[in-house]
Amino acid sequence: MAMALPSGATMNITIRLQFEKDRVTFSDIAAAIGKAGGDIVGIDVISSSKVHTVRDITVSALDTKQCDLIIEALKKIQGVKIINVSDRTFLMHIGGKIETNSKIPVKTRDDLSRVYTPGVARVCTAIAEDPRKAYSLTIKRNTVAVVSDGTAVLGLGDIGPYAAMPVMEGKAMLFKQFAGVDAFPICLDTKDTEEIVQIVKAIAPAFGGINLEDISAPRCFEIERRLKEELDIPVFHDDQHGTAVVLLAGLLNALKIVNKKLEDIKVVLTGIGAAGIACTKILLAAGVRNIIGVDRHGAIHRGETYDNPYWQEYAQITNPDNEKGSLSDVIAGADVFIGVSAPGILKVEDVKKMARDPIVFAMANPVPEIDPELAEPYVRVMATGRSDYPNQINNVLCFPGIFRGALDCRAKEINEEMKLAAAKAIASVVTEDELNETYIIPSVFNSKVVERVRQAVIEAAYRTGVARKDNIPLGVYSGEQK
Amino acid sequence: MAMALPSGATMNITIRLQFEKDRVTFSDIAAAIGKAGGDIVGIDVISSSKVHTVRDITVSALDTKQCDLIIEALKKIQGVKIINVSDRTFLMHIGGKIETNSKIPVKTRDDLSRVYTPGVARVCTAIAEDPRKAYSLTIKRNTVAVVSDGTAVLGLGDIGPYAAMPVMEGKAMLFKQFAGVDAFPICLDTKDTEEIVQIVKAIAPAFGGINLEDISAPRCFEIERRLKEELDIPVFHDDQHGTAVVLLAGLLNALKIVNKKLEDIKVVLTGIGAAGIACTKILLAAGVRNIIGVDRHGAIHRGETYDNPYWQEYAQITNPDNEKGSLSDVIAGADVFIGVSAPGILKVEDVKKMARDPIVFAMANPVPEIDPELAEPYVRVMATGRSDYPNQINNVLCFPGIFRGALDCRAKEINEEMKLAAAKAIASVVTEDELNETYIIPSVFNSKVVERVRQAVIEAAYRTGVARKDNIPLGVYSGEQK
Repeated sequence: MAMALPSGATMNITIRLQFEKDRVTFSDIAAAIGKAGGDIVGIDVISSSKVHTVRDITVSALDTKQCDLIIEALKKIQGVKIINVSDRTFLMHIGGKIETNSKIPVKTRDDLSRVYTPGVARVCTAIAEDPRKAYSLTIKRNTVAVVSDGTAVLGLGDIGPYAAMPVMEGKAMLFKQFAGVDAFPICLDTKDTEEIVQIVKAIAPAFGGINLEDISAPRCFEIERRLKEELDIPVFHDDQHGTAVVLLAGLLNALKIVNKKLEDIKVVLTGIGAAGIACTKILLAAGVRNIIGVDRHGAIHRGETYDNPYWQEYAQITNPDNEKGSLSDVIAGADVFIGVSAPGILKVEDVKKMARDPIVFAMANPVPEIDPELAEPYVRVMATGRSDYPNQINNVLCFPGIFRGALDCRAKEINEEMKLAAAKAIASVVTEDELNETYIIPSVFNSKVVERVRQAVIEAAYRTGVARKDNIPLGVYSGEQK
Repeated sequence: MAMALPSGATMNITIRLQFEKDRVTFSDIAAAIGKAGGDIVGIDVISSSKVHTVRDITVSALDTKQCDLIIEALKKIQGVKIINVSDRTFLMHIGGKIETNSKIPVKTRDDLSRVYTPGVARVCTAIAEDPRKAYSLTIKRNTVAVVSDGTAVLGLGDIGPYAAMPVMEGKAMLFKQFAGVDAFPICLDTKDTEEIVQIVKAIAPAFGGINLEDISAPRCFEIERRLKEELDIPVFHDDQHGTAVVLLAGLLNALKIVNKKLEDIKVVLTGIGAAGIACTKILLAAGVRNIIGVDRHGAIHRGETYDNPYWQEYAQITNPDNEKGSLSDVIAGADVFIGVSAPGILKVEDVKKMARDPIVFAMANPVPEIDPELAEPYVRVMATGRSDYPNQINNVLCFPGIFRGALDCRAKEINEEMKLAAAKAIASVVTEDELNETYIIPSVFNSKVVERVRQAVIEAAYRTGVARKDNIPLGVYSGEQK
């Protein structure tokens, strides 16, 4: 899904400027910033001479467009020279956001002889004799690779591996912050499916799991399928399954409010790409019977032959009544709308055609399939991908806990049962007392989420025989980074 | 070089055992340990009931063989059950020795929106528009990949990527501890030269440098050559060039003691593998004219045709007088012996044939080419790879500083001039007053080393036009990990 650049809420920029004291006063500058819509929130004097003064002025603005207007306005003032412009978001990324540290210091020759030669040789030999010891004697048991080729980054599309790094570093931060997992970004300078499969297999020894991220469809399906088959560690494409798990969690709670069952509902889903197909499959696995997928050409049905083999397969497993037509046609009588597609494609008229108590998950980012305020009078439960509306469907609710659980029981894969268990665990964090139309899904900062998901995933892994740790891991993950 | 397993000095093991109180006393256990040659250095009571007691007994022993004898002795005591045996070295490796941390916490929704979506999108876009910004906005500028295929690990040979991990993690620790460099282990489950080249190229976007490690010859030459040609970041095979740099540093100081010049000396070098060829090349680059390489078949010379193309090339650039024969033949009149080969191959008789004030670098590990105590009466300066004799030639003196310098000036490669500069910098840490036969090379814990090497490497990088940072980086690297 190619979407517009997410805009963010307000942003702060810091403008370093030099002005000539006899030509300009600070109030001239403040006036120009105010006139351009900026709000001065901080000033630092960097240097001052008889002639010039250099100041860092931090300005709050609505978006990058307004920032540009402010900069333009300042440039027009005679005697003002802009030295540099930065903003808080950029400052948080300077030099990267993660680092690799030693767990123990190497201060003496004795330390050196144990962590490195000659002592390390005995540790190496122990692993060479029994490779399973890699789980106890290396970082493998707590380390996940965040792998991307940079082809489908956020809504930005194919921006390449260098530009994808800030997202993968951010993901690594969240892994550590929310679940204590050590994650490292592997951004690949290739788009070749075969090559990506081969590379990930080759680098796998260091890792206990592979989180695929922001790889475009349809290559992401093949890459994930092959790696799942050929590696003995969990491989999880978060854009597909993370989204699907959190969607299902939200839907489980939404259905409690409207008192409907998965088996009975009619679901219409728009955007039959990676996330859409994964959402469909988890809903089918959870018990939903009637899902209709809609893409550019309308409802996907068995009467049509599709060039896209994934749509061809999709037609076989969905739309039992073989409904045809546009979104506006098939939405009639639907209980649930799920959008992982494009801004504004769901109209108020469409919502009006839905069954009683419509549930709408409009997850296109940053602009949903329908404006929540327009929809509000006609829907019972509404969720989006945004943090500034209630019921945010955010993958951060899923991937830290699901990998924490998979690593802790040394699962060889993350299977369908583990994903379903994760969804139910996320849903369970919202208690019956708390549950209401504007609170179907917990906050990403709710510390219960990771531990609930972890426990549920571990139980499902043992139940389905994919856990390889002999003793069921006990204890509660504290949720706190050291 | 396939060598014996390094033994380490003494080692501590912790034995968790349960004994029946009415059948065994602690003094029985202590006696058995003592008789087997062990020394009890710690006791912890883990649990105690009327019938049983469980204790952790930490025992110091000479080597793994003696540990086995101690365990056997304990097993023979009726009423004693050994629950578990571990040792301090193993304990330092449990769960791996490095971790990935966030530099900044993600505590609020506002933090989340800056380090991850939606804020991160602007950072990604900035890099997509100008890929050089990867150096300022990602971890690239401070991050090195430690890449191995596990084919030539320490003296253990081809133990594979899983068993190589503890060494690569150790290396990452040393990078951080000594030079503040973030390093991450990439252990590859392939030995195919072409595949390794392709994989390292593909994963390069995250990294500012590639440290190749423990890859067997001759593949290591081709892999390094190709990567140097095809990547725009420094690629450095430490087993070759780290050893060569530190050897040259030691030799520069040793020659001061005997008052000889590089141009005038005759050098005999044994072991014409990766390290031996690199040592030869740096000595030639530094000004040595007469080096004779010796391997299994004797001195390498131009009268012979070699199957090994690297020996064929070696014959062309060394041995100007075309000397033939065994080590014992060509050692006659040599000023310097350099061994990167096998234990015990240099005889006292050979040393006696050398020129006045013989200099011997016997770097085979853990057992040198000649026993330092046997050599002592006949050599003027002796260096080994061991920490328990004076003058340890240890790569830790080189790789942290050389990468620190290369990263700080964004060098596109580590060239010959930078290596020579690093060697001279290491040598310079030993002052004229301090210099003597048993102190030609600084300790790895000498905090001046990294900063001297860094400065020298940066200067050489700008001088030779491979530095890409516009402003010469100033300041002193503190040598302290945060």
